[in-house]
Amino acid sequence: MSVNQREIGRRVLLSDIRKAQKIPRIFLAERTGISRATVTTITAELLREGLIEEVTSDSADKDARRGRPKVDLKIRGDAHLIGGAKIANKSISLVLQDFEGKPLADHKVDLSKSVFEPEELARVLAENVEVLAAKVGRTADQISGLGVGIAGIVDAPQGFVHWSPSLSVRNVEFAKVLEHHISIPCFVENDANLVAVAEKSFGLGQDHSDFIVIIIESGVGMGIVIGDEIYRGTRGCGAEFGHTKVHLDGALCRCGQRGCLEAYVADYALTREAMSAGGGSDDQPIEALLARASDGDPVAKSIVNRAGRMFAMGLANLVNIFDPELIILAGEQMQFSYFYADEVIHAMRNSIVQIDKAPPEVVIHKWGDLMWARGGAAYALDKVSEIALAEMSEHAG
Amino acid sequence: MSVNQREIGRRVLLSDIRKAQKIPRIFLAERTGISRATVTTITAELLREGLIEEVTSDSADKDARRGRPKVDLKIRGDAHLIGGAKIANKSISLVLQDFEGKPLADHKVDLSKSVFEPEELARVLAENVEVLAAKVGRTADQISGLGVGIAGIVDAPQGFVHWSPSLSVRNVEFAKVLEHHISIPCFVENDANLVAVAEKSFGLGQDHSDFIVIIIESGVGMGIVIGDEIYRGTRGCGAEFGHTKVHLDGALCRCGQRGCLEAYVADYALTREAMSAGGGSDDQPIEALLARASDGDPVAKSIVNRAGRMFAMGLANLVNIFDPELIILAGEQMQFSYFYADEVIHAMRNSIVQIDKAPPEVVIHKWGDLMWARGGAAYALDKVSEIALAEMSEHAG
Repeated sequence: MSVNQREIGRRVLLSDIRKAQKIPRIFLAERTGISRATVTTITAELLREGLIEEVTSDSADKDARRGRPKVDLKIRGDAHLIGGAKIANKSISLVLQDFEGKPLADHKVDLSKSVFEPEELARVLAENVEVLAAKVGRTADQISGLGVGIAGIVDAPQGFVHWSPSLSVRNVEFAKVLEHHISIPCFVENDANLVAVAEKSFGLGQDHSDFIVIIIESGVGMGIVIGDEIYRGTRGCGAEFGHTKVHLDGALCRCGQRGCLEAYVADYALTREAMSAGGGSDDQPIEALLARASDGDPVAKSIVNRAGRMFAMGLANLVNIFDPELIILAGEQMQFSYFYADEVIHAMRNSIVQIDKAPPEVVIHKWGDLMWARGGAAYALDKVSEIALAEMSEHAG
Repeated sequence: MSVNQREIGRRVLLSDIRKAQKIPRIFLAERTGISRATVTTITAELLREGLIEEVTSDSADKDARRGRPKVDLKIRGDAHLIGGAKIANKSISLVLQDFEGKPLADHKVDLSKSVFEPEELARVLAENVEVLAAKVGRTADQISGLGVGIAGIVDAPQGFVHWSPSLSVRNVEFAKVLEHHISIPCFVENDANLVAVAEKSFGLGQDHSDFIVIIIESGVGMGIVIGDEIYRGTRGCGAEFGHTKVHLDGALCRCGQRGCLEAYVADYALTREAMSAGGGSDDQPIEALLARASDGDPVAKSIVNRAGRMFAMGLANLVNIFDPELIILAGEQMQFSYFYADEVIHAMRNSIVQIDKAPPEVVIHKWGDLMWARGGAAYALDKVSEIALAEMSEHAG
């Protein structure tokens, strides 16, 4: 067995134990095609490193009678503390998990503003990671890795933020800035990609290798999973959906261009139209607009309907290009009931290439605001596992 | 070395010898990381099967003096005859190549109509494959595999045509129909994907793992390469660009839907507009329209300019979604000079998300009509190699 094969074996077995939750060694050999002898060697290493542990099998009683106590292998939760954070507009949500992915604590903090200098935002995040850790009697430096989701264009492998609505400057090596203040490995990713990671790890995408997640809130986010991996594009700025154009020379977008999907469906776009239609005096213009549309107000309905049709057209274009197994419409905002409505999905289905085979499944996943942060933790969990496995290989020489 | 490892080794070495064209065994070991002993074993097998051959190394003279004649390995051209065909509107183009990919013959036949019953089209193709083979003194049944490109929605791994403008019926197991008439393995693929295969195998995409090919002719075709592989989508109908929507409730498309990109940029769309503008009496309406636009006719310019801007918008959406390394604008039609013009590429660059990193490279690749058929042959070459390797594994037990 070469060094390389042993590394691959460790990766495969750790990942398979994680997937199975609890599994006897013999099933591991069957499931992975790795020989029983190699499974024994590698799991002994993983046990020695403390990444996995033995537990009594659920079927132990029976076997114990025959004098052969059975054990299963599982991930050792105490092996690592993992953090996840989502930097939102005027708030940060954080979660703390163990190495099994079990939630230990969460924390949310409201911010006084939306846009920060990178150093300042890193300090705020550092303080709140400390608060999070204290909730379980630990300190921030005991966390093995922190996954941080932020809106904008992020080159995740480099931890580099090309641009974010939360940062006052462009082109920030944000992972490095964070690590300067938090002193633990930090992994920065586009927030919508983290939702895709969450759906893949423990959500509706668990059994799918190719799917798309769409989230409408203040902007329009998208995460693409192809062949079980997040698709990022070659410059780290792929999977951009909100600024695809749905109308030549169309409505003005916050980005300065015209005709972007966001300029029709995002909060500010609906607010702008509601104000033009005389609804500008409301404290909560979106809620008021949607309420008026529900009550049958023709102008409000016209605003919401056009936005829904533009959204359907954008979705149909994604289906024509990707032909995914599944589309997950995710999020927590109240616009949901309009954009994720049957009519919109129906309009999308009528705008895709028609073949005699069912169109992709569309599912709606409403979740609370911790989903983003949990995606961050799932991303960090992957990275921390990689680091732990890399260290094992170094020790082994 | 397990059976599985040996299979992978054969695949890697055959592919690497193909890439290198001529290579000594020792470099193969270095380039692939496979041990020298295994390289010796596996290349002996490949030599015995006749898939590769030994040739005198270019540096032989020098070494011969020292009594050690050097040999290189290369693909044995005579190992297999490979065919490629493109079914176009009212014509079929065919090429015949050897196993090295060297062109041996080509053949083009005009057809009396555009739409055929599947059986009828298969008979026409069979006759012309026979004509093609006869050009080098061979018969069709001596060809090891035929790659066939056809417009429409094709599930390539299944050889299944969901829909094609060349076929009178939907849902055709076209590879099976062809094999019934031609009696050799036939591989059916969407024609634009075959151009992507051609660009990847011997064109401008050779050194790129992620790129997009766009072809405007009677329709708008697209091929996507992600991670060195053709991206097909989960139902085999991904990478559809011509029917993505660029305008809600826009111009009527031949497909029956509204606002498709094709309804603005395809031949019929330009002809339709030219006729509305009083240019309907021309025999060659597209050529006349483009000539008038060149001469500065404002209506003709308006038609062509809008089409160009719609095309730029569609391209920008692809860049926002895929963030590819490279976009190849390929084809042979004269609309080229308008749609593939600097202004269109400039408009595309202004409509993508702006980051401080260069946008994807855009290259224009003008080629003759044999490119499609050569892509078909490149696709068949891959498949025939797979079959040959699978047979070796069966013999080896």
